[in-house]
Amino acid sequence: MNQELKTLMFNRSSFEHLMKMDDYINAVSMAHKLHAEGKCIETNLVHADAPNGEYHIKTGGILGENSYYGLKANGGFFNNQRNHGLPNILGVIYLSNAENAYPLAIFESSVISKMRTAAATAVAAKYLLPKGSIKLGVVGYGNQAEAQIEALLCVTNIEQIKVSGRDEVKLGLFVEKIAKRFQIPVSMNTIEYTCRHSNVLVTCTPSTDFFVKNEWINKGTFIAAVGADSPGKNELDPQIFAGAKVIGDIKSQIIKVGESQHAIAKGIIKETDIYAELGELITGKVEGRTNDEEILIYDSTGTAIQDIACAAYIYEKLKENKEIIGINMFE
Amino acid sequence: MNQELKTLMFNRSSFEHLMKMDDYINAVSMAHKLHAEGKCIETNLVHADAPNGEYHIKTGGILGENSYYGLKANGGFFNNQRNHGLPNILGVIYLSNAENAYPLAIFESSVISKMRTAAATAVAAKYLLPKGSIKLGVVGYGNQAEAQIEALLCVTNIEQIKVSGRDEVKLGLFVEKIAKRFQIPVSMNTIEYTCRHSNVLVTCTPSTDFFVKNEWINKGTFIAAVGADSPGKNELDPQIFAGAKVIGDIKSQIIKVGESQHAIAKGIIKETDIYAELGELITGKVEGRTNDEEILIYDSTGTAIQDIACAAYIYEKLKENKEIIGINMFE
Repeated sequence: MNQELKTLMFNRSSFEHLMKMDDYINAVSMAHKLHAEGKCIETNLVHADAPNGEYHIKTGGILGENSYYGLKANGGFFNNQRNHGLPNILGVIYLSNAENAYPLAIFESSVISKMRTAAATAVAAKYLLPKGSIKLGVVGYGNQAEAQIEALLCVTNIEQIKVSGRDEVKLGLFVEKIAKRFQIPVSMNTIEYTCRHSNVLVTCTPSTDFFVKNEWINKGTFIAAVGADSPGKNELDPQIFAGAKVIGDIKSQIIKVGESQHAIAKGIIKETDIYAELGELITGKVEGRTNDEEILIYDSTGTAIQDIACAAYIYEKLKENKEIIGINMFE
Repeated sequence: MNQELKTLMFNRSSFEHLMKMDDYINAVSMAHKLHAEGKCIETNLVHADAPNGEYHIKTGGILGENSYYGLKANGGFFNNQRNHGLPNILGVIYLSNAENAYPLAIFESSVISKMRTAAATAVAAKYLLPKGSIKLGVVGYGNQAEAQIEALLCVTNIEQIKVSGRDEVKLGLFVEKIAKRFQIPVSMNTIEYTCRHSNVLVTCTPSTDFFVKNEWINKGTFIAAVGADSPGKNELDPQIFAGAKVIGDIKSQIIKVGESQHAIAKGIIKETDIYAELGELITGKVEGRTNDEEILIYDSTGTAIQDIACAAYIYEKLKENKEIIGINMFE
C-alpha cells in the first residue's frame, strides 16, 4: 500500500541514525525563515497538571513548499526513571498535512527535541559567531550539552572547549566523552574560568539561579542561552543584557519564558530592546554580528515550529521506507 | 513483544465493529462521574487557522482505576471531500498513561466522536426521560442523528420516531434507513409537527438560527440539544430555557459554546441557573427528573474527557489483540 495514505510511526531507531545534525539545522533554518516571512500557523501552548507530573502540548505549523501542522505532547514526570524505568520527559510529536489535516505520522519526541534545540544554536551561530578561532565554553553536561557541541561543529571549527557544571564526577565523565567523540582539547574548569576564557558560551542547565556573572563575559562573545525555557529558569546575570544585543527564537516566547524574562523584569531591557528574531537574521532583514566587540545573546526557548519542521523533514526523507510501520487510519 | 510497551494504532476497522454503543455509554458515564468527583485533569482547547481550514485540539484526562491523559487533534477542512476525497472533519485522538505519560495509542477520531456524543445523550436520558411511552422527535438526518437513536434505544424503548430537516430528499433517505435498521415506525414531518408530537426531542444540526419554537414544546419533554458546540450555533428558541431545567455536560463549556449561550446572552437565564452537570446526576448529588411536567434540556457540547474515556475503554478492551499494530517508541 502507498505509504502516503498511511499514518506512519517513527520510533527512535526508525530515524535517529538516518538523520544528521545538518538535516536538523536545515529544517530549523527553514522553520524560522518561514516564521520571518509570516508563513507559519500560530503557535500555542497548553499545560495541565497530573497527580505525578505535568503535561505540556505545543502546537504550530509551517507553510512552506509543503505545509504541515502538528503538536508535541510531552509529559514531565520527574520520578519516572526511579519508579517506572521510563524517561522523565517523554511523549510524541504528531504531524498532519496542513492542506487537509491528514494524519501523516507520530514520532517519539525526545530525539527531535534534543536535536532541534542544538540545531537552533548552530543556525544562530552562523550569524552571530565572533571572527577568528573559537574558544567554546559550555556550562552543563547533559545530552543537550553534547548536542550543542555537535551542532556548533557543523558551522565552525572549535579550537578548544572548556566545560563547567555542578557535579564534578558527571563533569569528568562528560569531558572524557566529548574529548573522545570530537577529538578537540577539552578541560573542566570553574564557571568563572570557563567564561573568562571563551568567546562562545553555551549555557544548558535547568538552573533557576544565574551562575554566569556579567564581569566574566569577554567583549565579542556569542552566548547561547539554552537552559531557560520556562518561567523562573535563569542562567545569566541579567546585567549582561545591558551591554548585549538579544536575538530570540520567537520574541513573544523569550520575553515570557526565556532568559530575557529576568532582564525585562528587572527593567534592564524593555521588550522593544530585543534586537531580532532568528528568522530575521536568516532572511537578511536584520544583520547578525556587525563588529568584533559586541556581545550577542541567542535566547533559545525552543519552538513548536522547530519540532514540526524537523518532524516534517524526517517524514519527507523517510516516508517511502517500507520498514516504517503505518496504517490507513480511515480504513 | 508485550503490547503494553507498544504505542498502538487504532484505525477505524480495528475497533469500530468490536465496540458496542453500550461500551461508549459506560465510558462516557464513567468520565462524567469522575468529573463530578473532581477526578479529572483539567480540559483545555487550542484553536489555529490554516489556509484552507482550521485545527482544534481538545485536551483532558481522567483519574479513575487507571488514569489517562490525552487529546483530540481534529482539522475542519470543508473542501476536503470535494478537493481530496477526504472527510471534512478528520484527525486523531492521542492517549497516554497519566501515571507516567507513556504514549499508549492513537485512534482515528471520527468514530469515537460520533459514538461518544450519542452516548452522552443516552447517559443523560437515563436521568431525564419522561415516564411512559417515548415519542421521539429528531431534527437532523446526519450520522449523528442515527447514532442518537441507536444510543437512546440502549436506555429506553421508543414507540415512534418523527424526523425533520431542511433537505427533503436526504430526510426521505434517512427515514428509510432508520425504519429498516431499528424496526420502529418513522415518519417525516415539519419541525413544528415533530416537536408538538414528541416527548423526547433531539436536535443535531449545524444550524446558527434556531428552528424549534418555544410554543411547540410539550410539558414534560426531554430535549437533547446536541448541535450547538461552538459560538453562534443555535437550534432552540432561547425562550424555552425560561421554563426548563438545564443540565450540561460541563457547565463552563455550555455557557460559552452550548445552546445555553443564547439564553444567557439574552438574559433569559443566568449562569447560576444551570441546574446540574451530567456527572452530578450520575453521582446522585443532583436529582434528575422530579416530575412529569418539567421540561429538561441536556445541553451537549462534547468534552475531551468523553473522548479520552472512550479511547481508554477501547485501549483496555483491545490492547492484547495482536492484530492491532504498534511499536515501542523508545527503541
